[in-house]
Amino acid sequence: MIQSLVNGKPQHQVSILDRGLQFGDGVFETLAVVNHRPCLWQYHMQRLQLGCERLGIPCPEESLLLSESRQLLESTAQAVLKIIVTRGESKRGYKAASSTTPTRIISVNSWRKPDPSPVTVAVSQQRLGDNPYLAGIKHLNRLEQVMARQTCPEEAYDALMLDQQNHLIEGIMHNVFIQKSQQLYTPILDHCGVAGVLRRTIMERAEALSMPVLESRLGMNDVLQGDALYLCNSLSGIRAVSAIIGHDWQPSKSRHPVIDQLTAEIFDKC
Amino acid sequence: MIQSLVNGKPQHQVSILDRGLQFGDGVFETLAVVNHRPCLWQYHMQRLQLGCERLGIPCPEESLLLSESRQLLESTAQAVLKIIVTRGESKRGYKAASSTTPTRIISVNSWRKPDPSPVTVAVSQQRLGDNPYLAGIKHLNRLEQVMARQTCPEEAYDALMLDQQNHLIEGIMHNVFIQKSQQLYTPILDHCGVAGVLRRTIMERAEALSMPVLESRLGMNDVLQGDALYLCNSLSGIRAVSAIIGHDWQPSKSRHPVIDQLTAEIFDKC
Repeated sequence: MIQSLVNGKPQHQVSILDRGLQFGDGVFETLAVVNHRPCLWQYHMQRLQLGCERLGIPCPEESLLLSESRQLLESTAQAVLKIIVTRGESKRGYKAASSTTPTRIISVNSWRKPDPSPVTVAVSQQRLGDNPYLAGIKHLNRLEQVMARQTCPEEAYDALMLDQQNHLIEGIMHNVFIQKSQQLYTPILDHCGVAGVLRRTIMERAEALSMPVLESRLGMNDVLQGDALYLCNSLSGIRAVSAIIGHDWQPSKSRHPVIDQLTAEIFDKC
Repeated sequence: MIQSLVNGKPQHQVSILDRGLQFGDGVFETLAVVNHRPCLWQYHMQRLQLGCERLGIPCPEESLLLSESRQLLESTAQAVLKIIVTRGESKRGYKAASSTTPTRIISVNSWRKPDPSPVTVAVSQQRLGDNPYLAGIKHLNRLEQVMARQTCPEEAYDALMLDQQNHLIEGIMHNVFIQKSQQLYTPILDHCGVAGVLRRTIMERAEALSMPVLESRLGMNDVLQGDALYLCNSLSGIRAVSAIIGHDWQPSKSRHPVIDQLTAEIFDKC
């Protein structure tokens, strides 16, 4: 069974000159696959394209990525599909020749639909760095997340991350939503953070139901004064938070209708 | 002729599961090689070890890295030697198993001793993000540098980079020193920047000659009021700046004795 394609060829290695390795010079997407179909494909492709555009990498054609993904998913009904696009190979130095050809790496790995039970989170001591040029996109420079994950307590499903000014931004692996008096809020991601595909889905569904999410500058006070806190990403779906380590906080029982709807159906709409 | 070793084997590929590619989860060094010998080897090893320690990666033995480097340099007198150490391979997710084995990638590439003539620099519009956990070390998350390099004017040898508070930090590829009234200053690198091996060499030599460099919070004003500005890195050596694009600034004729000494001998002491 083929598990990975590099530039369309069944292989599991890349050149040591690839700028993805040398500098983290690329972007990636991880998609849940249900019934052989990648969930929220269009949104993932749009973010991949945005990321490539931001970094000045010519994005591979969507149809090519789709046909290669399908090739891997022929024999795999349920999985996680990871698509990496790097700027390609270059000899040395931060500057790449304009003729550099991007590398596309598509791979599948095991994944189970998540248990939707509530989770405990921690608050990371580590602050995210500011970089408006990289904010929002899912690039390959993920040392901040790797390091925050190392210090995340075992019992926590994720840790909330703040920026240098102590604004709430996201979890290490999830976007976050705060519910207060039936209003949903989510952090503005203009100077750091990853704008998740499921975050977008929630925001669009809420908008369609005339209950728009407010993108705001938020802090831990907003979390602690909120009625509910949710984490989301493409592989975890939506998870309500039941406890925050180190804080005397409890969610109220009421769940936002948009969250309720989407939690139930998110992995059915692939 | 062998050009690269991956974990001691002559090859030029790594697994797509390597965390160096997946997350930029690793560190690297680039060393000038003169007469088959890597320059400033001990300092490069010490920074590599510090970087590994900071990221929680078990650093390969120095003796192993040295014997593998020598193997590549047997037939190569003058070159750039690049050593990458990543956390190793893991399936998915920011968390790595404690059993993960680091990957070491050693490669050589062509390099010439630099022409020591003065250079023109630009000032980057892009600001470096703050991250005290990653400051100082030479990790593989280098998108900030890749992006700053893209917008650096052709005629500039490098561009000065400031942080979010407009403090001078470094060039895209070099550390910086300001000379004012025969005193050398260099930026404090406690929240961003790479603490270069040649930066350290200059500071130690200056200390030994009782003319210690002052590590300071500096801004563009300090640059513009300075008598001289120098760039340095392991491959460029020390380069005096003769012009700053967009600024009416000229260096004075006097050069600091430490800079003068080291400029002359830096690639002789390998």
